[in-house]
Amino acid sequence: MTLCWTALQREQPLVEQIVDQLRAGIDQRQLRPGSRVPSIRQLAMQLHVSPSTVVEAYDRLAALGVLHARRGAGFFVQERRGRPVRERGPKVTELAVDAHWLSRNVYETDAHALQAGCGWFPPAWFDRDSRQRALKQAARYDSALAEYGHPQGYAPLRRYLEDWLGEAGIATQAEHILLTQGASQALDLVACCVARPGDVVLVDDPGYCNLLSCLTLRGFTVVGVPWTPHGPDTTALEHLLQTHQPKAFFTNPWLQNPTGASYSPATAYRVLQLAEQYGCYVVEDNVSAELLATRTQTLAAMEGLHRVIYIGSFSKTLSPGLRVGFVTAAPALIDALTHAKMIAGLTSSTLAERLALAMLTDGRYRKNLERLKARLASAQDASHAMFTTLGWQLFTTPAGGLFVWASPGHAGPDPLRLAESARSHAILLAPGCLFRPNQTATPWLRFNVAFSHGNDLLQFLRGAK
Amino acid sequence: MTLCWTALQREQPLVEQIVDQLRAGIDQRQLRPGSRVPSIRQLAMQLHVSPSTVVEAYDRLAALGVLHARRGAGFFVQERRGRPVRERGPKVTELAVDAHWLSRNVYETDAHALQAGCGWFPPAWFDRDSRQRALKQAARYDSALAEYGHPQGYAPLRRYLEDWLGEAGIATQAEHILLTQGASQALDLVACCVARPGDVVLVDDPGYCNLLSCLTLRGFTVVGVPWTPHGPDTTALEHLLQTHQPKAFFTNPWLQNPTGASYSPATAYRVLQLAEQYGCYVVEDNVSAELLATRTQTLAAMEGLHRVIYIGSFSKTLSPGLRVGFVTAAPALIDALTHAKMIAGLTSSTLAERLALAMLTDGRYRKNLERLKARLASAQDASHAMFTTLGWQLFTTPAGGLFVWASPGHAGPDPLRLAESARSHAILLAPGCLFRPNQTATPWLRFNVAFSHGNDLLQFLRGAK
Repeated sequence: MTLCWTALQREQPLVEQIVDQLRAGIDQRQLRPGSRVPSIRQLAMQLHVSPSTVVEAYDRLAALGVLHARRGAGFFVQERRGRPVRERGPKVTELAVDAHWLSRNVYETDAHALQAGCGWFPPAWFDRDSRQRALKQAARYDSALAEYGHPQGYAPLRRYLEDWLGEAGIATQAEHILLTQGASQALDLVACCVARPGDVVLVDDPGYCNLLSCLTLRGFTVVGVPWTPHGPDTTALEHLLQTHQPKAFFTNPWLQNPTGASYSPATAYRVLQLAEQYGCYVVEDNVSAELLATRTQTLAAMEGLHRVIYIGSFSKTLSPGLRVGFVTAAPALIDALTHAKMIAGLTSSTLAERLALAMLTDGRYRKNLERLKARLASAQDASHAMFTTLGWQLFTTPAGGLFVWASPGHAGPDPLRLAESARSHAILLAPGCLFRPNQTATPWLRFNVAFSHGNDLLQFLRGAK
Repeated sequence: MTLCWTALQREQPLVEQIVDQLRAGIDQRQLRPGSRVPSIRQLAMQLHVSPSTVVEAYDRLAALGVLHARRGAGFFVQERRGRPVRERGPKVTELAVDAHWLSRNVYETDAHALQAGCGWFPPAWFDRDSRQRALKQAARYDSALAEYGHPQGYAPLRRYLEDWLGEAGIATQAEHILLTQGASQALDLVACCVARPGDVVLVDDPGYCNLLSCLTLRGFTVVGVPWTPHGPDTTALEHLLQTHQPKAFFTNPWLQNPTGASYSPATAYRVLQLAEQYGCYVVEDNVSAELLATRTQTLAAMEGLHRVIYIGSFSKTLSPGLRVGFVTAAPALIDALTHAKMIAGLTSSTLAERLALAMLTDGRYRKNLERLKARLASAQDASHAMFTTLGWQLFTTPAGGLFVWASPGHAGPDPLRLAESARSHAILLAPGCLFRPNQTATPWLRFNVAFSHGNDLLQFLRGAK
């Protein structure tokens, strides 16, 4: 039995029409489980579309579990006969809104939800042409797939970073740079190399939620340093350094996640002074380095790489999906970090690292970055305006970046309840407790400005009690 | 000042000639540090070669640190003026031959060394056409770079694996499969989810060296289960289970690394019985699954996924550089593993996972695999013949795979000294102690059969005392 196709409409996306018609055909049993669907070429000819349109439709149907690909044999309607079947258990219980929930639900993209609390950019904000150009050269890099890469990562990208960091006043060398699977892996590796389970480590409070989960799961005692709109409270920091003798202070000094605040020069100087005095590493997570309106003096540039360990990433400027980040630090530490990287998953992807270098050097990077910053600036403005309309409080007015830290005040709705209630409106919010050690309650929430200025959100927040 | 080019010779690789001439020009100061080299198009026209040839040459020179790329401005001769320079310290002390040394030196490929001890395939043994075909489609996957992937990895690849594992008798579902950065990350994640620092975990003795380093660094107490040519000694295993109540037994039952031995059916049955009796997880590392001459009943197929956690990879059959592996286990465990994966580096690369699926389904996978197995079989034969000539002992005659475990006997040279002496002959050997907990001495060495049958190695080993 074959499928009866309706002629495709030019006004609607072709891929979606093919997906819809095939799903309907399967639902109506015109195509039975296990049967082969038309070949890509065959269907392309029949529907007068390009083969790549059919490929995209089949890929999407495969992603939906409607079709599956078999080695060399084409695409088939999913069936589950003729082999052992594990009983499908009940669906995993709906998790409450906690850090685990955030990490799962935010990344398991629900395209229909309003992602006001998520940590990433709208995909359309990244330059598609740059990706396309880099990927079209990918076949030139095929040898990258035939072997493991260098333990420290693709050397030309490390050399590029040496120059790039040098321009920013951070004196390092390619051989003291380690490429990682995003900044997240770098943070984890650093934690495991500078501290042992049970040791105290300091973090920004509030701070990056994935880092808090990571440090807790690794068995460290995580203590928060309260933040002001100018960075950590240095009096509190000194007290914590005296009391706990922590091994490291993990901090995100510039356009901080979640508050959007940055260190003042006085805070930066004092933090470095205290780190020196108490023999504590400062792990400078600077993933938003390139999103600042003007380049700032980083802690690494001020202090050198003695007690400062510097982490960066391309997830906010090139592509989050590349999974390329880096860390630079004193040579002996890089050696230990390289060993830790190898045992946690061997080498990183040379292909991804070559693609990153291609995108960084293709001549449009600077222009794309300026466009991204302009978009962020106007989204920040629109978001601030919305919170003004609502009468909410802003922790600070961020000088760029993706986040704003806002609060309905102590008399307003409880952020955790607000987030639970938002879920039923298909709005994803990020209550502030997710960004605090031990998920301590707080009247603040983190908003992603790219998604936080529309009428739907305004109406929901206005109606919330 | 510009470079004087000699006409290229058709008989020699063009890329190498360009590389050599440019290097010579720089050495002779015809091109000065900091100066721009000709544009790709310009040089291609001048030398009558294709632009891609020049691109490859420049890339290689960049990899060598001779040139560097600047954003949008082209390639320049490397210089180090005009910005802060960190003093180059003395070269990191030459490390002794230990597991750390192995992991660094083996992966920091020295193309001129004879890699008789390494853990990977000659790059040419993987099918270049498959890689090329997959990469030529890569631009279709550009959206994969614009966002983070699903926490568990690209769903169609997980569905493919569900079928693939189902065919091998392992009943699981796509939603209970987690894609990882190679099997190495899967092993690390599993260890961190089933045990806590201080807990005892059992490993094969000898076993996979990177796993031993990983478990040690994570703070577990690592105890080895002695191997026989038919798998672990089950009497010893029972004793260790009684004595230590370990949380998990990490084992590589098929074409084991490093011995090349596989479990007998009786061993498999007994190991599962003991795991049940003592409440211990069995982590079945089956990275060489597809290299067996005939498919074996895995532990996971026998027992289901109750106490067995099953790990696989495409590094031995498709591409080590893709960095795609997977783990399947009981649903609750997959949930914990997914969380652990996210905190250790967020999502894995959707691009890599799509490339893997493309290579698995392009219709040549089966044929390429058969060719790989045939190559391994003849390399195994040649290697066994060499050791017979030398009068060395084999632990077992492996039924395929990459490794053979061989010994000159107690009267022969000490493997650690042998490895040190081999280094001065540019031969990389892997003494057996690297594969044992605490690097306990042993008269055995691991050989990679792909590199272990030539005359150079025979002569070196024959002369060794």
